[in-house]
Parts: sequence; C-alpha cells; structure tokens
Amino acid sequence: MRKNKLRQIVKDGGRIINGWCAIPNSYSAEVYSHCGWDSVTIDLQHGPVDFQSAVPMLQAISTTDAVPMCRVPWNDAAIIMKLLDAGAYGLICPMINTKAEAEQFVSYGRYPPIGTRSMGPNRAVQYAGADYWQGANDEVLLFAMIETQAGLDNLEAILSVKGLDGVYVGPSDLSMAMGKPPTLDPSDKGVIDAIARIASVTRSKGMIAGVHTDGPATAKKRFDQGYQLTTLMNDARVLAVAATNMIKETRGLAPNETAKTY
Amino acid sequence: MRKNKLRQIVKDGGRIINGWCAIPNSYSAEVYSHCGWDSVTIDLQHGPVDFQSAVPMLQAISTTDAVPMCRVPWNDAAIIMKLLDAGAYGLICPMINTKAEAEQFVSYGRYPPIGTRSMGPNRAVQYAGADYWQGANDEVLLFAMIETQAGLDNLEAILSVKGLDGVYVGPSDLSMAMGKPPTLDPSDKGVIDAIARIASVTRSKGMIAGVHTDGPATAKKRFDQGYQLTTLMNDARVLAVAATNMIKETRGLAPNETAKTY
Amino acid sequence: MRKNKLRQIVKDGGRIINGWCAIPNSYSAEVYSHCGWDSVTIDLQHGPVDFQSAVPMLQAISTTDAVPMCRVPWNDAAIIMKLLDAGAYGLICPMINTKAEAEQFVSYGRYPPIGTRSMGPNRAVQYAGADYWQGANDEVLLFAMIETQAGLDNLEAILSVKGLDGVYVGPSDLSMAMGKPPTLDPSDKGVIDAIARIASVTRSKGMIAGVHTDGPATAKKRFDQGYQLTTLMNDARVLAVAATNMIKETRGLAPNETAKTY
Amino acid sequence: MRKNKLRQIVKDGGRIINGWCAIPNSYSAEVYSHCGWDSVTIDLQHGPVDFQSAVPMLQAISTTDAVPMCRVPWNDAAIIMKLLDAGAYGLICPMINTKAEAEQFVSYGRYPPIGTRSMGPNRAVQYAGADYWQGANDEVLLFAMIETQAGLDNLEAILSVKGLDGVYVGPSDLSMAMGKPPTLDPSDKGVIDAIARIASVTRSKGMIAGVHTDGPATAKKRFDQGYQLTTLMNDARVLAVAATNMIKETRGLAPNETAKTY
Amino acid sequence: MRKNKLRQIVKDGGRIINGWCAIPNSYSAEVYSHCGWDSVTIDLQHGPVDFQSAVPMLQAISTTDAVPMCRVPWNDAAIIMKLLDAGAYGLICPMINTKAEAEQFVSYGRYPPIGTRSMGPNRAVQYAGADYWQGANDEVLLFAMIETQAGLDNLEAILSVKGLDGVYVGPSDLSMAMGKPPTLDPSDKGVIDAIARIASVTRSKGMIAGVHTDGPATAKKRFDQGYQLTTLMNDARVLAVAATNMIKETRGLAPNETAKTY
Amino acid sequence: MRKNKLRQIVKDGGRIINGWCAIPNSYSAEVYSHCGWDSVTIDLQHGPVDFQSAVPMLQAISTTDAVPMCRVPWNDAAIIMKLLDAGAYGLICPMINTKAEAEQFVSYGRYPPIGTRSMGPNRAVQYAGADYWQGANDEVLLFAMIETQAGLDNLEAILSVKGLDGVYVGPSDLSMAMGKPPTLDPSDKGVIDAIARIASVTRSKGMIAGVHTDGPATAKKRFDQGYQLTTLMNDARVLAVAATNMIKETRGLAPNETAKTY
Repeated sequence: MRKNKLRQIVKDGGRIINGWCAIPNSYSAEVYSHCGWDSVTIDLQHGPVDFQSAVPMLQAISTTDAVPMCRVPWNDAAIIMKLLDAGAYGLICPMINTKAEAEQFVSYGRYPPIGTRSMGPNRAVQYAGADYWQGANDEVLLFAMIETQAGLDNLEAILSVKGLDGVYVGPSDLSMAMGKPPTLDPSDKGVIDAIARIASVTRSKGMIAGVHTDGPATAKKRFDQGYQLTTLMNDARVLAVAATNMIKETRGLAPNETAKTY
Repeated sequence: MRKNKLRQIVKDGGRIINGWCAIPNSYSAEVYSHCGWDSVTIDLQHGPVDFQSAVPMLQAISTTDAVPMCRVPWNDAAIIMKLLDAGAYGLICPMINTKAEAEQFVSYGRYPPIGTRSMGPNRAVQYAGADYWQGANDEVLLFAMIETQAGLDNLEAILSVKGLDGVYVGPSDLSMAMGKPPTLDPSDKGVIDAIARIASVTRSKGMIAGVHTDGPATAKKRFDQGYQLTTLMNDARVLAVAATNMIKETRGLAPNETAKTY
Repeated sequence: MRKNKLRQIVKDGGRIINGWCAIPNSYSAEVYSHCGWDSVTIDLQHGPVDFQSAVPMLQAISTTDAVPMCRVPWNDAAIIMKLLDAGAYGLICPMINTKAEAEQFVSYGRYPPIGTRSMGPNRAVQYAGADYWQGANDEVLLFAMIETQAGLDNLEAILSVKGLDGVYVGPSDLSMAMGKPPTLDPSDKGVIDAIARIASVTRSKGMIAGVHTDGPATAKKRFDQGYQLTTLMNDARVLAVAATNMIKETRGLAPNETAKTY
Repeated sequence: MRKNKLRQIVKDGGRIINGWCAIPNSYSAEVYSHCGWDSVTIDLQHGPVDFQSAVPMLQAISTTDAVPMCRVPWNDAAIIMKLLDAGAYGLICPMINTKAEAEQFVSYGRYPPIGTRSMGPNRAVQYAGADYWQGANDEVLLFAMIETQAGLDNLEAILSVKGLDGVYVGPSDLSMAMGKPPTLDPSDKGVIDAIARIASVTRSKGMIAGVHTDGPATAKKRFDQGYQLTTLMNDARVLAVAATNMIKETRGLAPNETAKTY
Repeated sequence: MRKNKLRQIVKDGGRIINGWCAIPNSYSAEVYSHCGWDSVTIDLQHGPVDFQSAVPMLQAISTTDAVPMCRVPWNDAAIIMKLLDAGAYGLICPMINTKAEAEQFVSYGRYPPIGTRSMGPNRAVQYAGADYWQGANDEVLLFAMIETQAGLDNLEAILSVKGLDGVYVGPSDLSMAMGKPPTLDPSDKGVIDAIARIASVTRSKGMIAGVHTDGPATAKKRFDQGYQLTTLMNDARVLAVAATNMIKETRGLAPNETAKTY
Repeated sequence: MRKNKLRQIVKDGGRIINGWCAIPNSYSAEVYSHCGWDSVTIDLQHGPVDFQSAVPMLQAISTTDAVPMCRVPWNDAAIIMKLLDAGAYGLICPMINTKAEAEQFVSYGRYPPIGTRSMGPNRAVQYAGADYWQGANDEVLLFAMIETQAGLDNLEAILSVKGLDGVYVGPSDLSMAMGKPPTLDPSDKGVIDAIARIASVTRSKGMIAGVHTDGPATAKKRFDQGYQLTTLMNDARVLAVAATNMIKETRGLAPNETAKTY
C-alpha cells in the first residue's frame, strides 16, 4: 500500500504545508496541487464542494505528490466513508466537542476491529493499491477539529481516543466561541493562549497538531509554537487577494493589506 | 437594453482592466468577478472551458458590474452565436489573419442586416432586457485577435470591416509567429514594434485596442502605448503564482520572480 | 450587509409571493427568477436537486432581486450550514415535530451566541458583503415546517424557540398526517382548521406564516387567512401543467382542470 | 430497428405536435416529455444546451413514447454525427441557404452510400436496436431550416436533395431576413405568403413541412396551411409565461397577453 | 401504478439477477441496464456516486425493463426520501444492526401510516404514474443489510419489522465482522454458516433474501442456498476484470483468475 | 518535458496496446487506465464524450503510466487545439481523405513553424512540464484515420505530410466504404487486403500503423501484419459483453460468442 508521506514528515520532525481547495473544480485543483504543497485538503464543509465534485479533485491531486485529504462537512458516517473509499488519505472533522464525538468519528473512519467502517474502497484501491484494506487503518490520518469551548475543555479526553492522529485548530470558530470576532490570526490573549496550549498538549501525547492560518507569516508563527501542519489560506481566497491587488496596482492604488480571512 | 459599460469607458478615455477566466467553474468566476475588473472574459480557447461550463460562469459574472465577455475557441458560427445568445457582451476571436476572416466573424456575431446571426437569445434577454435584439448590434463588442504575421500584414484591411469594434493582441502567438519564444512581455525589438504599431493603427481608426499581458507592470506599459483594454493574467495563473510564492515564503525560500506566462 | 427584503415586506404588511425550483438547473432558475417573485426557494428535499446543483442556482437567483432561499432536505447540520455559506438568505426545514427539533435547526442555522453554526461563508460574502458574519443572524430567515400531527400539537412550543422566524405549512404531508389524501388545497374540515390555526397562532407571536399552495386561487385564500408568504407551485409542475394544456388545446381537447399537486 | 413513429403519423395524414427543450437538464426534459408530445426536440442552437447535456436529455425522452430529435447548432459534421450516434431520431439543421448546404447536411447525416456518416452508434443502438446501422438511413428524419432569403429562393433546389425529409421554418429569422421584426406569428403579408408557400411547395414534393410557432393558436393556423409538424414554444418560455401570469393573478394584476417569442 | 416486477419474480419462485452500478454515469448505466438484469442497483455507498449523479442513472435504467434500485450510503432520512422521490423502486440500506435501526429505515422509506416519509415524489410520478403515492408502500422494496455481528444476532428482530421486505447480505463486511479477511466468496466455515442461516431464517418468515457475490459461480451457489436475489459484481469491477484479461491475452500472458472483490 | 512513452515502444519494436474510453466519466477512465494499457484514448467522435468530460478523464489517465490520447470528433481547429492544451499526448483524427486534409490536421496540431497551433497550453503544462511548448511538436503523436476509399487511394500522399506520425485504421467505416457490412474483424478479401496494405505502406515510410479491433484475437492478427498499435474494444463494449455473459452464465445459458462490434 502507498505510504502516507505526511507520517514520514512528522516522524522526521518536518513541517507540513497544506493547501486548501474551496473551488469545486478539478482543473484548479490540479494547478494548485502542482504548486509545492505537502498535502492538499478539499474543503467539503465551508467550500462549496460536495462529494461528486470532490472525486475528480481527488484524481487531480493524485497526479502529484501532494497527499490528498478532505475536510468533511460534519461528523456523519456516509460522507466520511465515501471520501475514504474515494481515496482521501486524511480527514479533518469539524466541531469535535467531546470524547464521544471523537470516538464516533474514529469509528466511521477506521475498519474493524478499531472502528466500524464498511468495506468497499473504490478509487482508494487505484490510488493506494490492492492491499488498501490491510493498511488503511495505519496510513489514513484522522484529525479532530478543536474550535469550540467544549472542544478546548475536553482536549485531553479527545486526544485519548485510539485511532485519532491529531487535532486541527479552526481559529475563527475558536475566536467566536470565546466571544471574539472571527479571525485566522487572533490578537486576543485568551485565544492565543488556547492555540498555544492545544499544540503543546497534543505534542505531549505524541500526536499531530495542525492549524488553519491566513498565510505565511501566521503559519511560521504556528510552526514555531509546535504545530506540525499549517494551512495557508484557501484557493478562492488566494485568488481573490492576488487579483484584487493586481487590479489595484494597475490602477495605481495601494494594495490591500493582506485581507483578513475567516 | 442594458448598456455595455465598456463603450462608455472608451468614450471617456478610460482604461479597461479585464479579468480572464480559465478555471471552468462558476464559483471561482464569481469570486474573481468581485475583485474589481471592468470586464471578465471567459477563455474558451486556451482555458479548459466549454460552452456548458461557460453558461453558469456568465451567470456568475452577471451578479457583478463586470461586463461578461468570452474568447471563442475559433472563428466558428455555432459557438459564436451560442455564447452571444447566452449573454456574452463581447467576443474575442483568435487567429484573424485576413479581412475575409474578420468579415466571417462579424457575420456570425451581428444580426441582419449587418451580419447573419440567427435570432434566438436566451440568457441574453435575462441579462440585457426584452429589447435585446434591437440593441445587440450596438452594444456587443467584437474583437479580432492579431497574433500572426498575416494578421499584422492585413491589419488595416481587418480594421476596415464594418461591425468590428477593435483588435486584441496575443503577444505569445505573435512572438512565435515572428520566430521568437512565446512571452507576454516581449523584449524583442520587432515584436515590441509590432505591438506598438497595432495600437497606433487601431486608435487612428477610432477603434479599440486590447492586449494580453502578464500583469500590472506590462499592462501599464501597454496603456501608456495607447491600449485601452488590458488583461492582467488568467485566474489559474494568478492562483498558481500566488500559491507558489506563499509556499516558498513559508519554507523560507526566495519568491519566484513573477513567473513568465504565455 | 445586504438587507433581506422579505423582512421589510413583512414589516410593511405586504404579501410575499415565493417561487419554488425543483428543476436542478441554473438556466431555468434564472429564467424563473426573472418572473417577478419576491423570493425563490430551491427545493433540496422533494426536488431532485442537491448541493452542487444548488450553488449555480443560487448564483442565478442572485442576478435578480428575488431573495434566494432553500428548503433543506432534512434537519441535518452539514447541508444547513453549507447552503447558508453558499448564500441562501432563508431556509425552510421540513418535518419539525418538537421544540427540541426546532432548537436543533436554529442551532445549526445561527452563529454563536444564538447557535453553533461554524464560521466560513463563501458565496454568502459575495452576495451579502464582507460583514456577512456580523449581520447573518439578523438577516437570514429560518422557517420550521409544520406538517405532522406532532408539529401541530407542539406549535406553540416550536414558535417559542429564539432565532426561529416563522413556520411554513406543508398541506400535503399535513393531510396525510391527519389521515386524508395529500393535497395542496385541502377540503377536509380538520385540515382546513389546522391550517387556519397555524396562521393565527404564528401571527399572534409576531412571527411569519408561510404555506405551500397549488396556485393563485389557493394562495389568495391563504393570504386572506393571514399567511404572509405563499408558494404557488414548483417550476416543474408549472411547466407540466402549462405544456399539457397547450398540447390539449392544439389537439382540440379540453384543458385539464388545474392538475392537483402535492 | 425501432420505427420512427413520426413517419407513420405523416403517412396517416396526422399532425405532429413537437415539444422543444431549451433547458439543459434531464429532469425537466423527462417531465416535459411526459406531457403528450409526439416528438421532443432538444435545441442545441438557441437553447443553452450542448452535447454533454443533450445525452441525458435524450435518455430522459427515451423513457417516453415521444420521438427524440435535436436541432443542431450549425451544419457541422462533428455535432451532427455525435447527436445521431447518441440516439437522436431526427435532426433539424439551421440556416440552410443552398442546395450545396443541404447536400452537406445530408452527407453528414446519412451512412454510405447516401452520405458519409461515420459508423459508430452508441446510445442509438440501445434506443433503436442492434440493427440500427441497417435502418438508420430509413428511420432518421433530416429537416433543413428555411429561414433566410436565400433559403426561400433556393427552396425547390434544397427539396431536391436525396436523403432530406423535409423543411422546418424559423419565422423569426425569416422575418428578419425580410426586413421585419422577429416574431413567431408574423402579420406581415410577405412573410405570411412565404410561410404559406414553403408548406405548399414542400408538400407538393411529398416531403414534410414543419414550423416553429408561439403556441396553440398559431400552430393550428399552420396545420391548416398544410404544415405537418409544429412546435408550440420552448420549455423555458412556457415556464416563464405561465409563472409570470400566475404571479400577476396572485397579485391581482391582469395577465400578460401571451408574450411574443422569437 | 407501475408494478414492481421483482415482487412477481419472487412470488413465482424465480431468481432475481441484480446489476450493480458504481460508475457515476448515465451512459454506462444505460448500456449496463440493457444487458439483461432483472434489476439494477445504483451504489451510493461504496460506489463514487451521489444523488445528483444517481438521477440521470435512474432515468437511464428506466429506458429498460430492469427495476431501478439504490443502495443508500447510510440510514439517513434525507437521502432515503430523495432517492425514493427520484424513482427508486427498491432501497438497500447498509449496516442495519438492530430492530430500532430497521424501524428507522422503514420509517423513512414508507408513507404514513406505516412510516413518516414526506409526500413529494418527482421522477417517481413519471416512472410509476400519478397514483404513485397510493401504491408506493406496496411496490417499493426495502432491504436491510446484514453485515455485522450485531445484525446477525438481531436477525429475527430485524425481520419482524413491518414494512421491511427482506435482507441483503454483505459478505465482505460480514467476514470482517467475524474476524476474517473481506471476500465475496468466503471459505471460512463460520461465515459460510452465517450466510446460510440468514437465507433460511429470512425465507422462513416469507421474506426476501438477497446477497452480494463475486460472479456467476458464487451467485448460483447462493441461489441454491435459498437466496432469491444475487448481485454478480459491480460495473467497475466487471470492466476492470474483463479489460485486464483482454490485455493479458493480447500480450500472451495467462488470464487472472477472476480477481477477488470485496 | 515528459517523454511520450509510445515513441520509445515503437523505436524498440514493441507493440502498443491501446485502451478506448467511450464512457464519459473520470472514475471509469481511472479504473480502466489502471488495467495495463500502454495508452488510453478518449473517443470524442463515436463515444458520447465532449470536451468538458474529457478533461477530468485526461486527469484520471494521468494518474497512471498510460499515455493519454484522444480521438477528435472531426478535423476542426477548435477541438484539436483544446484537447492538446488539455494534455492529450496523441490525437487520432477521423475521415482523412486527402493530403490537404492531413495537412490541415497537422497545421492545427503543431506549433509554428510546422503548423499554426496557437500557444496556450493549460493542463499540458501540468502533465508535461513548463517546457512543454518547446517539446510538444516532438512528443505529441498525430494519427490520420484511413477509413474511406479516398483515404486508401491517397494513402501515400497522406503519409507524405510532414508532422504526421502515422495512420489509424477504422475497419468498420472502411468496410462500409468498400460496400461491405461494418465490422472490426472483416472477412472480405478486399477489405483484408486493404488493411494489410495500409500497414505495409505505412511501415515502409517509417511511420506508425495503428488499427481498431474487436479484441485480442484480431489484435494479435494485426500485430502480426505489422501494426504497431491496436485498440481492443471500447470500455462500454467491454462492459456490455462481459456483463451479458455473466448474466447468461448465471441463468445457465450459453455465452454469446464475442459480440461483433463496429
């Protein structure tokens, strides 16, 4: 079975730079995946992407070395199993608040005896090889999003769930949950401390800490805090910011400061 | 009938900054169209877009003030009429080499008595109003691409075709045609002179001169040469350049100089 | 943030005439949205539409003044949040039976602190503006469908849920629930009384009462009963009834009485 | 091979009532095809439909007894052969001006020895049977559109082309060609006479005369003039007219007189 | 209402040979449905198919005599009701472990008073007739998949649920659940006995026993055990096995033994 | 630039076994491409595939080592250039009858100075590398189909066109052209001789001879005649033949002799 390159990067102490696709199209996904990402995640939660669009996007990513991942829209069995069957090598699940929710996520995402995932990979066999079913539990990465007060409160319990590989922080929702405006580069002390604590607790368990950011500057800050995986910004946002600034430059206007995203 | 805003900009001596969509998707087209372009052109020639994808992209552009245009894949009656029926307010036709070819293009793109376009607008009526058929010949813009040696040689004859509004220069093909490597910012004296001449001849006829570029710097140069419409770079390229540089910055590497495009 | 026009109509004591799209296509949605509706609702429950089709339909509706709404297929977090992110300005949720179910619906549909909706609008920002997240809880309309005996029994409790804007009656399901054949213009006394009671109780709380109908005659009856929003018939049904009658007329046959719908 | 029902209707002296699909969707096509049409034509010229959308529409029509036909966008080999391979049992080709153009159309649409159509039916075999290739030249109907002054002038020559089954009149383009406003129910004497002449000349050769109309009243007039096939109005227009009138009725406004179409 | 042919086959003691579509395309579905199957099931669980793709596939199947069925991705209300509305005449629901889960499935799949399915068929009316709502509870087939240890343990309780028609065995998941490698032709005594027991218990209740297999040999074995419906292999697998062997034969290599599937 | 593996196979005197995709879907294309083909050709002529469907199919093929090729629907500039831009590494053009037609095909398919192909690769750059434009004329394969009497008669002239790599025989059309029934394994002496002659003339010029067949037996015969590339049967046909025979076997009926294809 094809190895999951991200596990090796983590083992080597490296930094995973993750792309994020919100544009539901396989051509933009292919262009984007060739840019040099370690992994590319299709966003089925906040991106206007659904399963049928995600399949050719997974194919597009599979023409490159980037590891194909998906953010699922919710902790639902159907979509979790369908995306894994279609060849996602990692899943990020939003809004995990409790150990029970994390267990449910892992149950959907792992074959027996760890979980209850149903047998029937399709593209996964093309991408990974015929022995996919034997190695999937070891190679596929499962990340629980920590982005609510409950998630923060239950962090240790969530991290104790066998079969979970790590967490992924959503700073905008986390900020909202703590009563602050949504932002991917929080300046609020409470939020900053929470983000720092998530990394350190997660790393102390030997698990993987990932986080959403608004670009290179914030990403580097997060890596320095101990995060091993950062997402820079989604493709639609990259496109909009760059295009807006090109237009402004052509019109002789000052560029936007990098637009805030959430 | 809805007025074509680009005609007013030209009348006012303004500069048209044109976006260029190669990603065959209506969500990216909508995000892109909100960036501040005067017009947005869907590329059915070199973008991997065909008619069925172009229709929702035209709808997406129509949620903004940007004027929807299309580059047709070839000087073919079917696609020219279909895109106009679907609400394109301007067409750019590649590889016009002769007056006869320009006449054919205009014939397809104009209703009688100027041309032979068949009556049956669909989205065009939604976008423009029920009197579309009465005003279409006046509002829709038709541009012939000058990008071959023959096109250069026949420039005056091409510009003499009644019903044509202007020309659009493809510097990459033009460079190739003159035996030089394809580039959107040519440094070859012959190509530079040709580009300059196209603008001056076109303007001298009171017609519109447009040109493809690789970004703001070249675009500003072209405006200064007399071009009234410039395209900055296509959406896929904007995305790739911006993403590549973000990754490099995050990895601590030097950014690419703005990647050359063709 | 763009205002939700429907709130103003209600405030002004006006009548909202709502279109209903079951055809999963953006061109028919655009044509239909230009007909003069105050709002147009995409039916993801009984129409053969899913999320990916709904996105360009939302774009199509957004080229007009009609307010874009969706009927979600079920009270599920994923689809509720995805449709709001994609720019739906109102949601209608089927089969709300209890206060708990209504609370769950509102929780999915409202940002904190009212609900638990996750932050990450995509088209919504294009449609509404960059301050969408600040105004969404105030502008987006949430309707609970009352169409079961339990829903009827728990009407007051359902209406007490903070963040819910009103109810929407499904007369066919309601008739079935009361042991009668499905119809959008019930003649059964019990069903008629139930429909009347829903309007009066809802209005007495200062909330919005909406209802599905089979056309203008029934719609006018409902407005007279106090309903503020009526749907006339879905697009596929409009098409079928009109086409059938045109064929009959051409063949010299008597037109159908307006076909009953459910 | 499955017989083409339309040939029998003509032989029996019956009247063919033809539906017209401009909405590029297989669900609306299926609903529409169940309404009672003798044939249903997918409009790839003025409808925003292309080949890939037309295939599931052909499948949808094939669930009913209506004969599936297509209007091709232009007299081009590729699309003519592709639509026949996909199971169209009749083609209508726009803008036939001369005998040579009619011969070209027939050449593309007929297998040797009559024409040069390439062998390789796909859906056609599913729809018609394995012996499709043996019967296709006999069953498939080919109509040349007469809608220009040249077409009128060359009518007899066009009708002399072996392998052509009849003509189809486009009154809007014909009106434009004769210097009149586009309309499907012309009141101009010259246009009226031309339409009458086309039927009588065509019938005198034993061929089939078809015509586009704006609804039952005009269609009946055309049948009385000798036309054997009439189209009532396209699906998008049926939908728009019916919906607009329902809204007006609900608002208490006078209905539109049947909106003029072109 | 159109009768469900499968009920008659069962009544007559016949054997149902069921096709299985994992390729999300209506052309392949149409070709496949013409091969001679009694029924064809679209796999929305392990096939990369979702609702929007399934609709034209249902249309394609409806051009033949094969009964259209779907395997739903999960025991979720939304997708169960949507597929029935779209004309599925049978549903197979994965991973039914308990009587409560079977009751939930039936509740979603049956109209009142048996269940709580919401009224609003779309394609179902086209396929079945206008009286669909009156006959649907009698014609539509509902199968619960038995493929876990809990499902096995609760088999009698599951079969006692009114409104359920039978079971469908997933040998791969069942094997996994019993600690064996996934296979569609198990050789393990425990799994073999379980499969035999499911048929005999199901038949003893007068219900229908169906099972997934890896091809004709296993299917015949299952029929001999009392199964009334067998699936031979999915379309993607048929294609891959046949193509691989054709290539090997052309290269002069030994054919694969029929590749194992799961 | 990525090398075209097929050129090396030919140089090494090997045999190219080519797959053929008529199913317009990227999942089936991916499954099929993993079967062991040297190249996989998407059929945009007789397969119900158009450009927009072909793009994700090209992506799917690009996840394997098989060389992606396309059969274009006709000798038209637009589609030839679009498919090359999208990354096709070989094109097969139907119905080449004369040297002039072959020259036109080559003109569309080669960059200057050999041809007039316009510069603007999109996926091609992703697949081949940034230097695609420099190597494309050397790597991309262009095949002219010989399948008419004129093509046969002009074979030597066609083969003299600089920039053409070889021919591809369509035995069904060729048989028809010679007055015989269409078949992929002709038994007519004249047709057999013609097929043999095409190989020998083509090989004598040092060019590549390819041919369509109905499976391994015919393919091996063709290789023995000197053909270097054979196509075994299209994917839809493979699926139908295999499925039909599985059903027959399960029903205890004799298998079809391998169904004749054309």
